[in-house]
Amino acid sequence: MNFDEIIERRGTHSAKWDMMEPIYGVPAEGGLPMWVADMDFRPPACVQGAVEKMAAHGLYGYYGDDASYKAAIRWWLAERHGWQVEDGWIQTTHGLVNGTALCVDAYTAPGDGVVLMTPVYHAFARVIKAAGREVVECPLALVNGRYEMDFDAWDGQMSGPEGAKAKLLVLCSPHNPGGRVWTRAELEGVAAFAKRHDLVLVSDEIHHDLLMPGQTHVPMALVEGIEDRLVMMSSTTKTFNIAGAHTGNVIIPDAALRARFTTRMAAMGLSPNSFGLFMAEAAYSPEGAAWVDALCAYLDGNRQVFDDGINAIPGLASMRLEATYLSWVDFAGTGMEKAEFTDRVEKNARIAVNHGETFGKGGESFLRFNIATPRARVVEAVERMQSAFGDLQ
Amino acid sequence: MNFDEIIERRGTHSAKWDMMEPIYGVPAEGGLPMWVADMDFRPPACVQGAVEKMAAHGLYGYYGDDASYKAAIRWWLAERHGWQVEDGWIQTTHGLVNGTALCVDAYTAPGDGVVLMTPVYHAFARVIKAAGREVVECPLALVNGRYEMDFDAWDGQMSGPEGAKAKLLVLCSPHNPGGRVWTRAELEGVAAFAKRHDLVLVSDEIHHDLLMPGQTHVPMALVEGIEDRLVMMSSTTKTFNIAGAHTGNVIIPDAALRARFTTRMAAMGLSPNSFGLFMAEAAYSPEGAAWVDALCAYLDGNRQVFDDGINAIPGLASMRLEATYLSWVDFAGTGMEKAEFTDRVEKNARIAVNHGETFGKGGESFLRFNIATPRARVVEAVERMQSAFGDLQ
Repeated sequence: MNFDEIIERRGTHSAKWDMMEPIYGVPAEGGLPMWVADMDFRPPACVQGAVEKMAAHGLYGYYGDDASYKAAIRWWLAERHGWQVEDGWIQTTHGLVNGTALCVDAYTAPGDGVVLMTPVYHAFARVIKAAGREVVECPLALVNGRYEMDFDAWDGQMSGPEGAKAKLLVLCSPHNPGGRVWTRAELEGVAAFAKRHDLVLVSDEIHHDLLMPGQTHVPMALVEGIEDRLVMMSSTTKTFNIAGAHTGNVIIPDAALRARFTTRMAAMGLSPNSFGLFMAEAAYSPEGAAWVDALCAYLDGNRQVFDDGINAIPGLASMRLEATYLSWVDFAGTGMEKAEFTDRVEKNARIAVNHGETFGKGGESFLRFNIATPRARVVEAVERMQSAFGDLQ
Repeated sequence: MNFDEIIERRGTHSAKWDMMEPIYGVPAEGGLPMWVADMDFRPPACVQGAVEKMAAHGLYGYYGDDASYKAAIRWWLAERHGWQVEDGWIQTTHGLVNGTALCVDAYTAPGDGVVLMTPVYHAFARVIKAAGREVVECPLALVNGRYEMDFDAWDGQMSGPEGAKAKLLVLCSPHNPGGRVWTRAELEGVAAFAKRHDLVLVSDEIHHDLLMPGQTHVPMALVEGIEDRLVMMSSTTKTFNIAGAHTGNVIIPDAALRARFTTRMAAMGLSPNSFGLFMAEAAYSPEGAAWVDALCAYLDGNRQVFDDGINAIPGLASMRLEATYLSWVDFAGTGMEKAEFTDRVEKNARIAVNHGETFGKGGESFLRFNIATPRARVVEAVERMQSAFGDLQ
């Protein structure tokens, strides 16, 4: 667990490193990629061991007998999240963007609306729109530099034409970007909101393991009275940094809701790749858990360095993360246009970041920085940012 | 390339080995799995090397920059199949069952018909039905123990109510089961049939590399005048025995047809896993080609042993394979009911095989035997079959 190790990723088909120049114009030579959400760390030794064992055996045929895979998921969710699931509830999708897309497909029709609490993970809106559904943006309230639910405003919105079309709500919990760990009271509010407006509730909890010290994530499944309209999503890919495996779990306790999902999954001819399954089974283990604990402590150290450095720049505000490694920095205080602050980050600091407006309403003045990289790079990023915005000192 | 090596696959999450008892009742101890289409051989060293290189680097993040992956596909299709493709035509799906499903989704509506030339690969009908479409079964003619196209009969069928609903034709070329390598004249007939009945034509060519000596596969894309309604499918997973990677290519030269496909693929939130991409790039190489040549020679040897042994049993007829490693054995000559010949194979010979009726009309009296296993096992299978049907001698 040497998170300080600098590993060369250029030229390895790493989207994060090898696509920052074509996408953002940030040079491969000297650029710092702090955009797409994967980490510059190796996964734990148990996950590495699973791949090495596959390579040593050397046969990669059709995967069968997923009992131990599902047992590992059950163990992890019970041990780490206090949630007891049954094997039959679990569907393994091709990652959770695919999982979200299948929910949109299964629970809505073309022209229907899907509610998002924006700003939120950009891929949600992408698949909703690609499927010919409409995004209903319910903006989060920015209160003292942190996001809060705004049910009164949203109820008003839902009483209009947008609300009539809405059939589905996709919640991001913990929240990306902004890193909120929603409280039990907030989650109860979401459940009540979903019931009030007759929405199926998809709870994307892909960041549930990446908690800052002292934080406790409440799985939506532990909120009472929502089970009959609830779809839960989680994955090893974010927690253990194996996004390339494209494997996620869509867990649906309600039989009728599950049947609608599995019908569409069968129609799409989807079954999981064996690499993702072997790695996930190895990851959901005591060894994997110890690694996650160490990882979270390290990420919290990065967060402190980053926040201290960024918040020292007049006009910049890095939102305090309760979870995730995705720092959400508001440039509104600089008074600059988006083009200017983005240019300074990309061209002067040579840092590739996600642009805020892709996350929906409320993201316009923000950029998202991925801080899951060796600390020396976070320090370097802060120095570059302080230099790029040095005239504001 | 030691295809004779016996590799223990039990207890490795091999569907073929570890699911034969739950699915077919053939005991894991002593049973011979000759059903699902993966091989008991390791892929070539270049593919193994790709996995080992991934493991040595140890990072499995989001995949980016697929130029070299697509170049490898282009090289293979030009070098081995005489077909020039462009990068922009290639969509990478989650295997070809998913590819077929996306075609059904993109090119038909619920209630529409999809034409299959039966008996044919069972997963086609499965995804068609799961999507709420109807299977239009056009039975192949069995002429002197080999399948032939029967356009006159099919034209008659298409003039009825089934034909009015049909929007799509899925061709299996080379054919599974039965192993026909369709001639250019036959493929021209298929193209004309598709045009005559205004069908989009999906050509699943997943077995295109697995040819018996002396056979030449003609890619449907090389048939004139069909390009504007043609979808081509191919994959490394069958050729190189890496089915667990679940990665396939759907290649669509026509821009309008391609746009319909990519829209639905985006709506499904699908992007490929990195293992399949790295392995495919390594496989589509001169070293991979040499391995395939050696493999095909070995499979032809297996075919001879199997056919000689099976055809010596009165009443049994193993169809002469021109391609694939999937021997299609007709038990009609025994006069036995399906339950009896199947019981003898599963309970007496303890061999797990695919049941013919799952392949559609015309498959009822057949069982499909996967002969891609070390020759000693093929010899053993023949001996068991001769014993199980010894009373017919």
